[in-house]
Amino acid sequence: MQTAITRLLGITHPIIQGGMQWVGRAELTAAVSNAGALGILTALTQPTPEALHDEINRLRSMTDKPFGVNLTFLPTLKPIPYEAYRDVIIDSGVRIVETAGNNPSAHMPAFKQAGIKVIHKCTTVRHALKAQDIGVDAVSIDGFECAGHVGEEDIPGLVLIPAAVAKLKIPVIASGGFGDGRGLVAALALGAEAINMGTRFMCTIEAPVHHNIKQAIVEQGEHDTSLILRSLRNSSRVYKNALALSVIEMEKSGATIAEIGPKVAGVKGRGVYEGGDVEGGIWTVGQVQGLIHDIPTCEVLVARIVQEAEYIIRERLVRLCG
Amino acid sequence: MQTAITRLLGITHPIIQGGMQWVGRAELTAAVSNAGALGILTALTQPTPEALHDEINRLRSMTDKPFGVNLTFLPTLKPIPYEAYRDVIIDSGVRIVETAGNNPSAHMPAFKQAGIKVIHKCTTVRHALKAQDIGVDAVSIDGFECAGHVGEEDIPGLVLIPAAVAKLKIPVIASGGFGDGRGLVAALALGAEAINMGTRFMCTIEAPVHHNIKQAIVEQGEHDTSLILRSLRNSSRVYKNALALSVIEMEKSGATIAEIGPKVAGVKGRGVYEGGDVEGGIWTVGQVQGLIHDIPTCEVLVARIVQEAEYIIRERLVRLCG
Repeated sequence: MQTAITRLLGITHPIIQGGMQWVGRAELTAAVSNAGALGILTALTQPTPEALHDEINRLRSMTDKPFGVNLTFLPTLKPIPYEAYRDVIIDSGVRIVETAGNNPSAHMPAFKQAGIKVIHKCTTVRHALKAQDIGVDAVSIDGFECAGHVGEEDIPGLVLIPAAVAKLKIPVIASGGFGDGRGLVAALALGAEAINMGTRFMCTIEAPVHHNIKQAIVEQGEHDTSLILRSLRNSSRVYKNALALSVIEMEKSGATIAEIGPKVAGVKGRGVYEGGDVEGGIWTVGQVQGLIHDIPTCEVLVARIVQEAEYIIRERLVRLCG
Repeated sequence: MQTAITRLLGITHPIIQGGMQWVGRAELTAAVSNAGALGILTALTQPTPEALHDEINRLRSMTDKPFGVNLTFLPTLKPIPYEAYRDVIIDSGVRIVETAGNNPSAHMPAFKQAGIKVIHKCTTVRHALKAQDIGVDAVSIDGFECAGHVGEEDIPGLVLIPAAVAKLKIPVIASGGFGDGRGLVAALALGAEAINMGTRFMCTIEAPVHHNIKQAIVEQGEHDTSLILRSLRNSSRVYKNALALSVIEMEKSGATIAEIGPKVAGVKGRGVYEGGDVEGGIWTVGQVQGLIHDIPTCEVLVARIVQEAEYIIRERLVRLCG
């Protein structure tokens, strides 16, 4: 299934793995890319730029297919050496970068000079248009369904994707709520050129995530997520456990970021993913977990999604046309 | 385009007009049904059961195509003679009823004995399963995108529709966020057998709504809606004006239903729809307004949606399969 995105990125299937902090390591990225989709390493999962350099080399030993590296610009307490991470990405010969969070304009000249294809992730049409203006090659637009940073506008993909496609000249990748062939066809019908899946790839054999977490995703439904940090205008969709609910209660009672921060520090997600204590920390998950019922390999998953999509198009939609 | 829903209801296209209070009158219902979709009168738009009887007769003089009548069971301050409305519907020979709000089980024996096809509207898979258990013929499931009562679970259609289809044996109508052929194909791909559109039909020539309201829908974007009454667990998506925002502020400061009620009384919607004072009252609208750019006749709208859907299937999706 070839689209504007598969051609832009040189991949076989219009499916991209979401850039997930603590999860986007070489094992998962290689498995996704080897399956013909686009795997994405997350730069900041590595503690230093040097460690990212090593991780890219490790990934190269596991796949010769295209892959991307995610670089997320977020407000953090500790300054992050973004330029050094960026230079490692460029010097390592990476061909595809996914940026997220703040506007990546300061880094665009360096990426473009190196001939890198840049995908920017955002949650509104307004930000997508800005990203197009500064020269990104595609946008990945996250609907309200998504895991992690959902933005503050709460526009789901059914409306957000066609609204974005109508206003943009560059290709749109639909993100948030996608996990199967039904969703892939829906996204393509809405005008997207690919889907981005985070939670679904987190729940694969190769994802470097504790089995307990994968099992929780399989068992829980679409209702079992919570939106935390809305009061700080930094809304994140996370797994609905007692800790997430207690954060929401703190927010309702007017707690400050200094009080809430320690409860939701990013390292908790890492601890949960690696330790498997589902209830013991804050970790991100999308509403699509309601559609996830197994833990396949990435190869089986990608092949199944594409087959299901082609079946829906040929055996359902075409027949409905009479 | 024939589906399980078109066959169940005897209609030409898998498109249903949402049951809209104050808007679902004979003019709109007839126009939608004459266009080959399913028009729906709203029973409670009529002040008495006798007035509903007259409105059904008026509708019959305008169309000989199938139509439905919506009967919504909601908590109200003034008791509503639901049995009398129901009996008028049955005695008038109506063949299709859409129920919404509270569980319609008390009325199901009467409807089924009369051979009426019942569609129940709900916002969660759990309620859809209950509706199936009590014998409804189809469910219309409303995603978080929708106008009016969105429920309290905030699951958009991209996840809600396939989750519902997977668990139900009866056909599913996708509701919320739909307004064009892109959405129709997406809904069919996700497993729905039809789409339900409220806001889109409100913005047609025949809708008995002031032109100012239609023009506001055309001009405003997907962000211009607000969720009010969340604090009362009666969340409604309405047009984002100063009045709606003031209600949200009242809610934040802990106002009670007795204080909020007068501000949002249903009659305000009627006044706005008829008087055209966009900023002067609370009125419901869905996020799909971001995809609405014109005010066509129902016939033009329905034909365009079906043509666009068939074009997307034949000229885009089939070609992507190679």
